[in-house]
Amino acid sequence: MRIAVLGGDGYCGWATALYLSMKGHSVAIVDNFARRQWDHELGVQTLTPIRPLSDRLRVWQRLTGNTIESFVGDVTDYDFLSAVIKSFEPEAVVHFAEQRAAPYSMIDRKHAVFTQVNNVVGTLNLLFALREFQPECHLIKLGTMGEYGTPNIDIEEGYITIEHNGRKDTVPYPKQPGSFYHLSKVHDSHNIMFACKTWGLRATDLNQGVVYGTLTDEVALDEALINRFDYDEVFGTVLNRFCVQAAIGYPLTVYGKGGQTRGFLDIRDTVRCVEISCLNPAAQGECRVFNQFTEQFSVLDLARMVQNAGEKLGLTVTVEHLSDPRVEKEEHYYNAKHSKLIELGLEPHLLSDSLLDSLMNVALKHRDRVDTAVMLPRINWRQPSNQRRAQSDHEPVLEIVGGSAGRNGGNDGSGQRIRAGLKTKVRR
Amino acid sequence: MRIAVLGGDGYCGWATALYLSMKGHSVAIVDNFARRQWDHELGVQTLTPIRPLSDRLRVWQRLTGNTIESFVGDVTDYDFLSAVIKSFEPEAVVHFAEQRAAPYSMIDRKHAVFTQVNNVVGTLNLLFALREFQPECHLIKLGTMGEYGTPNIDIEEGYITIEHNGRKDTVPYPKQPGSFYHLSKVHDSHNIMFACKTWGLRATDLNQGVVYGTLTDEVALDEALINRFDYDEVFGTVLNRFCVQAAIGYPLTVYGKGGQTRGFLDIRDTVRCVEISCLNPAAQGECRVFNQFTEQFSVLDLARMVQNAGEKLGLTVTVEHLSDPRVEKEEHYYNAKHSKLIELGLEPHLLSDSLLDSLMNVALKHRDRVDTAVMLPRINWRQPSNQRRAQSDHEPVLEIVGGSAGRNGGNDGSGQRIRAGLKTKVRR
Repeated sequence: MRIAVLGGDGYCGWATALYLSMKGHSVAIVDNFARRQWDHELGVQTLTPIRPLSDRLRVWQRLTGNTIESFVGDVTDYDFLSAVIKSFEPEAVVHFAEQRAAPYSMIDRKHAVFTQVNNVVGTLNLLFALREFQPECHLIKLGTMGEYGTPNIDIEEGYITIEHNGRKDTVPYPKQPGSFYHLSKVHDSHNIMFACKTWGLRATDLNQGVVYGTLTDEVALDEALINRFDYDEVFGTVLNRFCVQAAIGYPLTVYGKGGQTRGFLDIRDTVRCVEISCLNPAAQGECRVFNQFTEQFSVLDLARMVQNAGEKLGLTVTVEHLSDPRVEKEEHYYNAKHSKLIELGLEPHLLSDSLLDSLMNVALKHRDRVDTAVMLPRINWRQPSNQRRAQSDHEPVLEIVGGSAGRNGGNDGSGQRIRAGLKTKVRR
Repeated sequence: MRIAVLGGDGYCGWATALYLSMKGHSVAIVDNFARRQWDHELGVQTLTPIRPLSDRLRVWQRLTGNTIESFVGDVTDYDFLSAVIKSFEPEAVVHFAEQRAAPYSMIDRKHAVFTQVNNVVGTLNLLFALREFQPECHLIKLGTMGEYGTPNIDIEEGYITIEHNGRKDTVPYPKQPGSFYHLSKVHDSHNIMFACKTWGLRATDLNQGVVYGTLTDEVALDEALINRFDYDEVFGTVLNRFCVQAAIGYPLTVYGKGGQTRGFLDIRDTVRCVEISCLNPAAQGECRVFNQFTEQFSVLDLARMVQNAGEKLGLTVTVEHLSDPRVEKEEHYYNAKHSKLIELGLEPHLLSDSLLDSLMNVALKHRDRVDTAVMLPRINWRQPSNQRRAQSDHEPVLEIVGGSAGRNGGNDGSGQRIRAGLKTKVRR
């Protein structure tokens, strides 16, 4: 199958492109390296030293004999994007090419506007390009479980059947996203549904949970194929960040009580879910939604699991509760359905000690690259503008509102000791 | 009360600004005259010869002694918008300053992208400006009933209480908008809800129905204060267009079966609803939604009413069913709640023969300005790109798929005579 991976140089995109290539699909990567640019802007680096895309693709070709085409450009540039679609003629387009960090979108107005315009216009352009030049191509769009928020009822996969005043209808599931980034994905979802209905396009909207892990069989083939591993407050996903923190003896930074519950999945399941979607396309005119995660955990659950895994490796791991920089419920009901991908054949990699070990070992291997200054939250949802960049004479401060020195510190999420106002300067 | 009316040079905005000024409020108009520019782009004109804003405001001041300040600029320019907010210090901002025509957004990709970026960025800018400089100001945002689409259950005012799998929650009402324009309003609504929740802003989202009429007591004071009256396929609202068609003996152009049912309101109620919202502000942190319409009609209902009113004036009015250029249900359930504004004191001006007479008389008065070429739909929802501009040698063609020569032509919406494929060249 001819599959274009937009954003194929990024964290999920790279792993997906290699996986699909290894499975025998004809793959093209479309990327403008915006993600690498944001690292420079924020003064952060992936823990793992990733190579330029041209190197990566050369090594992949040498090792496997498989060629992955690359198209360098911006999907918000319609001339570029439509030329790609016309030239590559994809049967499926996997669209990862968006700004994907909630904190980035909450830095200030410019970042909020950039995130929404970038994501919405890129997706609109893609819808128009498919309608004009490749109307039977299957759009596989990365959404997020964060589109739903945390309602007090079960979360269904995209649609819900409502009985109301004696009548009944199946309608899009109501969305309550929690950042300007998450909002951009909600906007996308509405635009995609409309395009499917109006133009008969076919789409799968993958509402993905929080991804963890960095290794897939493919990226493990060679050091040159190594994947991103972000642990900073902006692009680092929570479990990856915890593993790095544990590995270097830094407290696990739990925001608030840590009762925030979300869906999670291993990056090895991300790539498989995308392939499953490709191989089982939506019908023309259908906008299908899959909730793409395998297990749900609270943030504190994850911290405890990392603590346990760390102890087995002989590490002392502490958990600190910081005041939550986000506006979100710290304790809430959460029950999200996620059976459709399972029904299509997904066999989940569930979170295990061995994975946590492996993540901590990745962190230990690259510990000289860890910058502890980038792990503390400096982007406050409540502020319309956040000065994020560290000044050289202004070391970041870990503001602890509650915590436990060790795993038996009595901090079980319901009765944690609150040390409000305490400021600890953490130096490494 | 200090009230800024963004988009105050437009159809609803102008009437609203004058009404609020007459009621003793201190009013500022913020506008960049984009609406006038779109007329030039499309080659259309308001039926009524409106004056430049500076003239309008001079005459208003002379007649009433009331000064309306004007700020000329684009709300997507944050420097401009934030300077306005800082300088005028509004207690309420009424936000009409968006591209408001569904067909305009469906012309092609550029118009779709423009509409969404323009509307979303303008509203984001406003949210940030209020958060930064005027956090207690009440945002009154014009949304549209079209955000809801036509679900098979009752439409509530913004939120719906759902019982699901034994649990219950009140969540935002699911949205199924029918054009890139309507989608932009859905995006806005989500962004506004988030800003209220996250920053404690206060907002009223007015999901307005289709507005008809052109006269309010204020715009009727002087010829120089005359309001817009759009009848073209892009910006003309359906009832206004029917009245113009009836007045000049042109068939009423019903799209498809005409069973499309929507909420409607008189422009005199628009201005009153806005004032009611100003005088009864949302609480800090609250994003309140009012469905702002007074009656619901099908398009065919309206055509029949215009036919009746026309007959009383001695006009012969025919109804023609064109193939629907939009993708929408031509027959459907529709029951939308609209009690909140009534509870706050709205006394609706219901649609009556006398109003239709008056609209037809406005049309008759300006009949030499009517351009029949701009009334026929040339923007097809199903196409990704529509050539809209008429060529001089290419007169628009009325493609009739079903119709009735007179009001007793047997075309009652259930068994209309379909004359598929018939093309009638209508010349006047």
